Amino acid sequence: MAFVPPTLADVRAAAARIAAYATVTPVLRNDVLNASAGASLHFKCEHLQRGGAFKFRGACNAVWSLSEDEARRGVVTHSSGNHGAALALAAATRGIPAHIVVPEGAVAAKLANIERAGGILHRCAPTIAAREETCAEVQRETGATLVHPYADARVIAGQGTIILELLQQAPDLDAVITPVGGGGLISGCAIALRALAPGIELMGAEPAGADDAFQSLQRGERVTDVVPDTICDGLRATIGAPNFALLREHGVEVVTATDGETRAAMRSIWAELKQTVEPSSALVLAALMKHRERFRDKRVGLVLTGGNVDLDAVDLRAA
Amino acid sequence: MAFVPPTLADVRAAAARIAAYATVTPVLRNDVLNASAGASLHFKCEHLQRGGAFKFRGACNAVWSLSEDEARRGVVTHSSGNHGAALALAAATRGIPAHIVVPEGAVAAKLANIERAGGILHRCAPTIAAREETCAEVQRETGATLVHPYADARVIAGQGTIILELLQQAPDLDAVITPVGGGGLISGCAIALRALAPGIELMGAEPAGADDAFQSLQRGERVTDVVPDTICDGLRATIGAPNFALLREHGVEVVTATDGETRAAMRSIWAELKQTVEPSSALVLAALMKHRERFRDKRVGLVLTGGNVDLDAVDLRAA
Repeated sequence: MAFVPPTLADVRAAAARIAAYATVTPVLRNDVLNASAGASLHFKCEHLQRGGAFKFRGACNAVWSLSEDEARRGVVTHSSGNHGAALALAAATRGIPAHIVVPEGAVAAKLANIERAGGILHRCAPTIAAREETCAEVQRETGATLVHPYADARVIAGQGTIILELLQQAPDLDAVITPVGGGGLISGCAIALRALAPGIELMGAEPAGADDAFQSLQRGERVTDVVPDTICDGLRATIGAPNFALLREHGVEVVTATDGETRAAMRSIWAELKQTVEPSSALVLAALMKHRERFRDKRVGLVLTGGNVDLDAVDLRAA
Repeated sequence: MAFVPPTLADVRAAAARIAAYATVTPVLRNDVLNASAGASLHFKCEHLQRGGAFKFRGACNAVWSLSEDEARRGVVTHSSGNHGAALALAAATRGIPAHIVVPEGAVAAKLANIERAGGILHRCAPTIAAREETCAEVQRETGATLVHPYADARVIAGQGTIILELLQQAPDLDAVITPVGGGGLISGCAIALRALAPGIELMGAEPAGADDAFQSLQRGERVTDVVPDTICDGLRATIGAPNFALLREHGVEVVTATDGETRAAMRSIWAELKQTVEPSSALVLAALMKHRERFRDKRVGLVLTGGNVDLDAVDLRAA
């Protein structure tokens, strides 16, 4: 099936579709962080979304886009965690089965989320090939619809609804920063922002240890051989082909930050903003701090994407 | 000076006085915590108040209640941390000096808050006598006005403003639970609740290792010889004499929870509500969980009082 990128109308339709189920997440501000950044920061708190991550938006839009017939056979996806939990939660809102293929070694807190939401776990080896094969197997057996974590127009449109809310909650922004993993979030945000507020800069933040989108934009072609090595467990995916095309089309810049910079930003967010976010979220603040001069005195929206941290594993001690 | 307890009118005046400076903190909800409590929980997020604790309300009301003459000479207090930082921040809003007497051994994150807000630190031995003596010395030298952390009508009225907001944000509550340390917060809440919504139960939560208010209510007289031993560093104070009188007058019940119970509740709040709260805040959820049967299917407001945690010291690993 050819990929047809969503439009602003699709993002708006997604917002209407998910309104009964998704949380309108708050935007938090903090004097101490503003002072240290030299900018006016607006944190969009998607870690307070249902399931603890923005992923519920895209998953919910996909689930409620299905026909009655399709819905009855359920949905299936492969996901290291947040999208899986989100799809399970979304499927539960429609009372349909969700099959979640998870690689060995996924974060315990995220697997617990999936099971709590009623998702059916299918474990597989931690390779892309094993994931896709297991997914295809489940599809053959159940007739479930694949809801890809990011290379899916319904998912992209759902993630773009964040921008509709953010523009209402924080008018007159100069820039928005989101993390980049597979690119579902940032491409949805690009579509909504370019249509509604083309003057607002959109920047993507990628872990230096999983900088395939950054490299892809530099080279002008999609780089798929980066072996991810980062604490940002939500951002280890390779940029999707349609997502990469959308980043290019909308002229989105991607910058990188190291795990050390992300860890310091995470500590600031926990300590000052008092929000328990996962490393993938903290990365946006790390990117902003690294490019502080560029954002001086600007009003910046930062999307905190998730808060599913393994509290047994986290180490926030100062370096 | 005889203590004149504040009235609802004083609480309302405090709300008007602090409106330009204090944050209207959000109320957060969470499906997972609701399910595990079997109740509908409304978390009033005072850890998102300026300075990271509800204390800013009372301190700000006290600072802006001073005459021009009094204000010029500044304010002084003794505080293990959150009230000190709050008073320093409040004094800064009026451009006057704040002298903060802190006992040796106070939490590093809280001392940093005080200094960042421009407070002038005076260290003393960790005894009540040393604190009071050092305070009196500063008063003699500077003419500063003492703003007691809890046994002060202006402070009590300021803390009571939480209830004005909470009743707007979460109508039809059945009960409200707040922590009890010196009793400034709970007595302010009692005054506002009894006047505005006498049908709403108010419960105080105290650490089992610092249960002087609990013991005092049992015995019908103020117990002042409890040696605090608890991780709830914000709740080690002895219940104030006027605060105890107000608890008795308004028939407030106080229950206790152990540090183990508080630690488990803190882990839940960090993991599910995604809020970085200090142990003194988590205690309210611990108390609710301990008395779960009583709150079954009720709508309960829980005041999360502060989020100033020393991230180097915190240990959230499962027991």
